[in-house]
Amino acid sequence: MGMTMTQKILAKAAGLSSVQPGQLIEARLNLVLGNDITTPVAITEFEKAGFTQVFDKDRIAIVLDHYTPCKDIKSAQLCKQAREFAHKHSITHFYDVGQVGVEHALIPEKGLAAPGEVIVGADSHTCTYGALGAFSTGIGSTDMAAGMATGLLWLKVPSAIKVTLKGKLQPCVSGKDVILHLIGEIGVDGALYQSLEFAGEGVSSLSMDDRFTISNMAIEAGGKNGIFPVDEKTMEYINGRVGRPCEAFEADPDAVYTREVVIDLDKLEPTVSMPHLPENTKVVSEVAGLHIDQVVIGSCTNGRIQDLREAAAILKGKKVAENVRCIVIPATQEITLQAMKEGLLEIFIASGCAVSAPTCGPCLGGHMGVMAEGERCVSTTNRNFVGRMGHVQSEVILASPAVAAASAVAGCVADPRI
Amino acid sequence: MGMTMTQKILAKAAGLSSVQPGQLIEARLNLVLGNDITTPVAITEFEKAGFTQVFDKDRIAIVLDHYTPCKDIKSAQLCKQAREFAHKHSITHFYDVGQVGVEHALIPEKGLAAPGEVIVGADSHTCTYGALGAFSTGIGSTDMAAGMATGLLWLKVPSAIKVTLKGKLQPCVSGKDVILHLIGEIGVDGALYQSLEFAGEGVSSLSMDDRFTISNMAIEAGGKNGIFPVDEKTMEYINGRVGRPCEAFEADPDAVYTREVVIDLDKLEPTVSMPHLPENTKVVSEVAGLHIDQVVIGSCTNGRIQDLREAAAILKGKKVAENVRCIVIPATQEITLQAMKEGLLEIFIASGCAVSAPTCGPCLGGHMGVMAEGERCVSTTNRNFVGRMGHVQSEVILASPAVAAASAVAGCVADPRI
Repeated sequence: MGMTMTQKILAKAAGLSSVQPGQLIEARLNLVLGNDITTPVAITEFEKAGFTQVFDKDRIAIVLDHYTPCKDIKSAQLCKQAREFAHKHSITHFYDVGQVGVEHALIPEKGLAAPGEVIVGADSHTCTYGALGAFSTGIGSTDMAAGMATGLLWLKVPSAIKVTLKGKLQPCVSGKDVILHLIGEIGVDGALYQSLEFAGEGVSSLSMDDRFTISNMAIEAGGKNGIFPVDEKTMEYINGRVGRPCEAFEADPDAVYTREVVIDLDKLEPTVSMPHLPENTKVVSEVAGLHIDQVVIGSCTNGRIQDLREAAAILKGKKVAENVRCIVIPATQEITLQAMKEGLLEIFIASGCAVSAPTCGPCLGGHMGVMAEGERCVSTTNRNFVGRMGHVQSEVILASPAVAAASAVAGCVADPRI
Repeated sequence: MGMTMTQKILAKAAGLSSVQPGQLIEARLNLVLGNDITTPVAITEFEKAGFTQVFDKDRIAIVLDHYTPCKDIKSAQLCKQAREFAHKHSITHFYDVGQVGVEHALIPEKGLAAPGEVIVGADSHTCTYGALGAFSTGIGSTDMAAGMATGLLWLKVPSAIKVTLKGKLQPCVSGKDVILHLIGEIGVDGALYQSLEFAGEGVSSLSMDDRFTISNMAIEAGGKNGIFPVDEKTMEYINGRVGRPCEAFEADPDAVYTREVVIDLDKLEPTVSMPHLPENTKVVSEVAGLHIDQVVIGSCTNGRIQDLREAAAILKGKKVAENVRCIVIPATQEITLQAMKEGLLEIFIASGCAVSAPTCGPCLGGHMGVMAEGERCVSTTNRNFVGRMGHVQSEVILASPAVAAASAVAGCVADPRI
């Protein structure tokens, strides 16, 4: 039986010639990742289990990004614990405040993810690196502890859904619209423990930033991972970032999928997810005019340079509406510098946006933009569950950077094409 | 009996030809100020007292700066309360997230403070505007409520200490060193309920940003206010910012002072305040080499453009030491834009600093840089009390931007002249 991209990567990582969906394997890990919330829990488990050494100091990444610069004493204590562990074990890829970005933007940027690799992280959006043709998935902190100690992890091989992309994205439509549309089609458990395997001629027109956004939200459809084929754009991205050999896996022509979803990019419109589930999608024109209080542009989903360019193109020469706070958070220091060089940050600040140092902050109601009772936010982040960004009576509408920027200017949900 | 600058301003504000120290007066207020922590308390008192109208919608300023962009639900609720009050009463000078800066940098920048005016604010560092030859002082939230309703406030006329400045500041020495030195000389209660009246030929060599820093920390010596004579630099600063008529008051030659302190600027060295009181001053060379974990450059004390220039001059082409997180917070959006244009923000980010949107945040242990147990910070902020910036077992060393930047590079307390 033919294998999908994901199945081929996992077969190799397990030292097997082939694997089947449902099969339990022990995979060799290329990278084990944690952040300031999950790493301290993993460290405690690591030490409780009696481990004294990490499997490979070069294959563990610890990124302090969720509550940093620290929002309170508790988060400062967690960062301290992670920092001391990193020093004790000489962890090569430890990223502290000022060196960091949001982990899932930082890891590809630093060349720590590459085609064919197996990457696990104690953060649900670790699936982001599927954009590079890697297998990557979120794990719990206990698995992170085991992974740091052994470099191995038991995994069940997922079955797959094929997502065939046709055509080409139209102006003001981006990767975020693709993934929101897909989640709307299949539901938040539509890909439960399955891999989302992107394919079709439409893939080539997607930028790497579009692909990162799409893979990033695979988990929001319940997916184990979301993976793209490796093409010229992938190779261009990793060129200069990844020095080690890596391998691009193609799905077999007779690979088995449980279902196929076809998305016609030509016809895709700016799409939003209404409260309180990512599957509650609407075409933006259906909900345009809805009053908002806040806009957030950033996060591991949409804090990359393309996202900032798209938002800045709309905000340029305009002002954020009086009733709206607009918070812009470039996902990494490199992206911040690039955005500064291109004049994007100047546009944001001149238009009345607050531009923050890289942090996950508002996405999880952590800090830097938490909402009060009755407030509504258009956000480029990834989850709009009840209370996700603040008060249980606040609401989050998920959207692309273009929709978010247009909404900031209009003071209500707005279509960026108008 | 002759009057000091402060006494003359208060006499005029009370409609009297002269006042004496200790006299109770009712002063007309030019501006009543509050922030996101104090304004909600004042609003509650305002409404409890049965007030339904503010005395003048153009003479109240509300700045959301302490916990913004909001760090949690509670702070979001406070901001919401302040925002709704501002809208209800059509407060002209309401500054929300993205429009704001740190209040005491923003108010002068927006031309809301001018020579001869009486400004009260529900924040202890309201004394900052003394740099412009205004009488300005911190009040409680109940007084803010009364001030918003009536435009009047009972005040006891302060006696005065004359601070005579001689000579000129040397390189790497700035206003922060002047005020820390002064507090070290007279103690944290050395000017209790007195006005600090700056005088002497040394004044003219001080930039406006130096003067703002000095007046800002008058309260840290217990001062009711700290005031500078109006000169060409003052007029240059307010030109284009302040449209309304204003009046410069000079101290009478026979004004009475309880004491005089003379500071020779020529001989002043970079000075720091060791934990846990601003009066615990040392010349930096006495404590150089002390291990640190964090540096904060910003706040209402030292987040202005000159401060950022001085820090950037030291950080340029260098890296923040590996053991240090360096957090840079321009005090307003205007300062952020200017710093960006001058390439300062690029220097900060390239050297590994986290650059935040304007906020008071870390200064009060609010957010954006709270410290864990056992950590030590060199900070350009204004208070180093026990637990001020985080855990009760953390320590704060107050310093100038130059000392802070040099310490960030060295990884320990460092003299910027070396």
